[in-house]
Amino acid sequence: MAQFINKKEDVVIEALEGLLATSGVPLARLDGYPHIRVVVRADWDKSKVALVSGGGSGHEPAHAGFVGPGMLTAAICGDVFASPSVDAVLAGILAVTGPAGCLLIVKNYTGDRLNFGLAAERARAFGLNVEMVIVDDDIALPDLPQARGVAGTLFVHKIAGALADQGKDLDTVAQAARRVIAGTKSIGMSLDTCTVPGSPKEDRIPKGMAELGLGIHGEAGVEQVDFSGAQSAMSAVVQKLGAVIGDRKVVALINNLGGTSVLEMSVLSHELIRSAIGSHVGHVVGPAAMMTSLDMRGFSVSLYAADAEELACLAMPVGPAAWPGLAKVGPVAVAALPDGLTPIMPLASNHQPTRDFLADCCRVMIAAEQDLNALDARSGDGDTGSTLAGAARALVSAMDRLPLSDHTQLLRAIGLELSQTMGGSSGVLLAIFFAAAGDGASSGMSMREALKAGLARMQEIGGASVGDRTMIDALAPALDQLGAGLPAAAEAARAGADRTAKMARAKAGRAAYVNARQLEGNNDPGAEAVARLFEFLARRAG
Amino acid sequence: MAQFINKKEDVVIEALEGLLATSGVPLARLDGYPHIRVVVRADWDKSKVALVSGGGSGHEPAHAGFVGPGMLTAAICGDVFASPSVDAVLAGILAVTGPAGCLLIVKNYTGDRLNFGLAAERARAFGLNVEMVIVDDDIALPDLPQARGVAGTLFVHKIAGALADQGKDLDTVAQAARRVIAGTKSIGMSLDTCTVPGSPKEDRIPKGMAELGLGIHGEAGVEQVDFSGAQSAMSAVVQKLGAVIGDRKVVALINNLGGTSVLEMSVLSHELIRSAIGSHVGHVVGPAAMMTSLDMRGFSVSLYAADAEELACLAMPVGPAAWPGLAKVGPVAVAALPDGLTPIMPLASNHQPTRDFLADCCRVMIAAEQDLNALDARSGDGDTGSTLAGAARALVSAMDRLPLSDHTQLLRAIGLELSQTMGGSSGVLLAIFFAAAGDGASSGMSMREALKAGLARMQEIGGASVGDRTMIDALAPALDQLGAGLPAAAEAARAGADRTAKMARAKAGRAAYVNARQLEGNNDPGAEAVARLFEFLARRAG
Repeated sequence: MAQFINKKEDVVIEALEGLLATSGVPLARLDGYPHIRVVVRADWDKSKVALVSGGGSGHEPAHAGFVGPGMLTAAICGDVFASPSVDAVLAGILAVTGPAGCLLIVKNYTGDRLNFGLAAERARAFGLNVEMVIVDDDIALPDLPQARGVAGTLFVHKIAGALADQGKDLDTVAQAARRVIAGTKSIGMSLDTCTVPGSPKEDRIPKGMAELGLGIHGEAGVEQVDFSGAQSAMSAVVQKLGAVIGDRKVVALINNLGGTSVLEMSVLSHELIRSAIGSHVGHVVGPAAMMTSLDMRGFSVSLYAADAEELACLAMPVGPAAWPGLAKVGPVAVAALPDGLTPIMPLASNHQPTRDFLADCCRVMIAAEQDLNALDARSGDGDTGSTLAGAARALVSAMDRLPLSDHTQLLRAIGLELSQTMGGSSGVLLAIFFAAAGDGASSGMSMREALKAGLARMQEIGGASVGDRTMIDALAPALDQLGAGLPAAAEAARAGADRTAKMARAKAGRAAYVNARQLEGNNDPGAEAVARLFEFLARRAG
Repeated sequence: MAQFINKKEDVVIEALEGLLATSGVPLARLDGYPHIRVVVRADWDKSKVALVSGGGSGHEPAHAGFVGPGMLTAAICGDVFASPSVDAVLAGILAVTGPAGCLLIVKNYTGDRLNFGLAAERARAFGLNVEMVIVDDDIALPDLPQARGVAGTLFVHKIAGALADQGKDLDTVAQAARRVIAGTKSIGMSLDTCTVPGSPKEDRIPKGMAELGLGIHGEAGVEQVDFSGAQSAMSAVVQKLGAVIGDRKVVALINNLGGTSVLEMSVLSHELIRSAIGSHVGHVVGPAAMMTSLDMRGFSVSLYAADAEELACLAMPVGPAAWPGLAKVGPVAVAALPDGLTPIMPLASNHQPTRDFLADCCRVMIAAEQDLNALDARSGDGDTGSTLAGAARALVSAMDRLPLSDHTQLLRAIGLELSQTMGGSSGVLLAIFFAAAGDGASSGMSMREALKAGLARMQEIGGASVGDRTMIDALAPALDQLGAGLPAAAEAARAGADRTAKMARAKAGRAAYVNARQLEGNNDPGAEAVARLFEFLARRAG
């Protein structure tokens, strides 16, 4: 699988440079490239307890993305999935540790334990007060005495970060971190392995299966389980977690392992909330990518039963944008649908001349059905005639319900009828035309002005102008000439419709996708319909 | 490709329920499921201009994830990649629009234009003041008069959202939105197509190629280009953008199309900043998933030359966690490496008895090389003997540099030597042992107490206890008995080492992965080394 990286040797440094340039948090890096890759707070004055974390890269935004006010003071970044060197860790500790001391937050992997551990020793030889905690939140391997550290690490970063920011001393911060670690339980699930830069992708998970209890370094999950969807996936995760969380309210940290879409993460959140342990989930952090495994299509859930003080720590605003915040889980609020969705039909009324006029117009459209279909067959799917005739028939049968004696209301009512009976975009556009014309009439415009307002709105919404090979090529000149009488309008409509035959390319509507040669010599069916209508009206009036 | 969803018909509603339950922002949905899927602010009092956006789903967090204080008032959610119905849009407008009116922010797709447009007309018939703007920021298709709306829409949401929140009137908000739209240019690139729920994945992009100028609905890109890495990818994107942005400072919105890892997005950010237009990028929004195309492995860059007022609007804090904030781009700050990385060797000094003692110990280790290797071959890679012998030889040749007359300094110095000359985790652990013992001695402990402090630290960092089949099985009982004299300590070490032969399973170190039967009957080589050392010391003293 191709990836947006350059040389694999450079990926960590290039990603850090990207973070440093765009994080919005005052950050600096130590001048130790390429071997010492340490991100530190640039605004750090060593007056409080420093928090240092890190480990292999490939878990972004962890850990460099969480350096900033209220969270980490420094992050030490190894190669992808490889522990940083003792020197790098020591550099980080020395760079940020003052009289208040330093807490190292280390995930439980041998390399990290040893390298951070030795660096701590070397820092202590300088008289620095350094404590180290080891996060082992993964419950995938219940028999292994050394559980891995995974996304639950974020609870430690955040709660310890808040306490350190409040000026608590190292003992207090370290004790809080150990309490969080002791109570945090995590497990992950994935549909696919991750793509390690420079390595071929392992194709380990068969179709129809998912891995449960996987780590964050592409290592195989504890078991492969049947995968049948989000609900069963979350249910498998919840079964593992439910066995260890007891009966208290918990905070759930919902972590995207890197390649899962936002849509899926929301579905998974829904499944967690409605799962067997959902009623225990009082707050959530995420869903968000916090501790990733490169581009893994998976997720993890970490649970911690935070007390009131810890909840306050989790809720405290921080600098790093990667921290998604703490959200209280509540029942979904449902608001009543507003009134007005079922349109109120104006009172029906009769006005014989209007009725006759409308019925005549409808007859013209019905009579033109075959001709317009034939024209449309050259450029579209051959149904313009039937669509217009169908709408005309519907209007005829709706005649008794229309407010024929009130022209303003009538325009709106016709728009409503068309929007309900006429499919496709032309139906919506004609509905917009009549609705906007009705608005114009109701605000005191003359009928001609109102129709022009309708045209303007239809053009705004539909995006077509004169020359784009649509009904507008006939309608616009016709309305322009309407002041000079119906015969002039009819003549203008006809000329406009005929001009469409010479337009080589449609810019809007379905005909936009049709070969120019197919269009040439044929009038646009919508424009032709308008021309025929105006020609009829001119004859009728004359 | 399997996905974390259930039935495709339910995916939009289930994702919305997940969002509503966990967003942390006061949200509600309208009571119109399944056809009317509208998310509204639950804390909305209609006193200001309402902002309504939406369209097809599959672009999460857009748009429902941006509903909240400072951004959208309502989001109308269609099916995946399908426009919502006129009724759904109308319901949203009616639910949130008060006397201050409402601005519809619509991406330029025919379905959305028409359905939002007709809904606007129907809302106007209720006397509501509704304006609509159409976002067309995509520059992929320069010849098409109707450019698509893509991630640049977020600039509109944010700037209009800030102005509406400040109480600006509808005209002002709409004008600002139109100005942003006119100035926003976006283009995207992807390495793969997206997985549409319920549809087979299209395999359109050949290996080694990327698509440039793609939309957000899985439609093909304008061109397929050779893909050779992040730098050339960003360079192709920048070439398109550079042609249209002119010479002003811009804000760059760096959007993850859904399936790109955080690591890659950081590399891409770095490439943008060091690209041909990098010096024009004064601020960034992201990198983050804002306007996705489901799980697409791609990104887009949107540029807008915001003025000072607009920058303030972009920087204003908002409720929705999906908005990543505005960050000023600056040169990467580089801090000097701290002093202390190059360890200061204590002054060398001689003390013949200590020198002899140390040299003797080293000789024991060198003599044991073959035996220990043979033991290790049963459980590991057969190099424990050589590792220890190598370290001993190095220590012998370092003798003239050691502070032999200062036992406290000597322990630390030995730790340092071992950490520099002895590879693997055992080297680090011994280094930790001696360093911590040195710390203990320097704080006034007796040598025996100091060594026990070293052991405790080694256990804490290494994670092994007595019974785990490591050197600790000999070292711990030996130090326990040291008060009773060297012979007692040697006896305890021997007994401990021999006990390891009966330990069926190692819990730490490489032997943890070895079959139990292979281990039985063989002493752990580390424990054996400790036993031999203490036996020698007892003989030497006696």
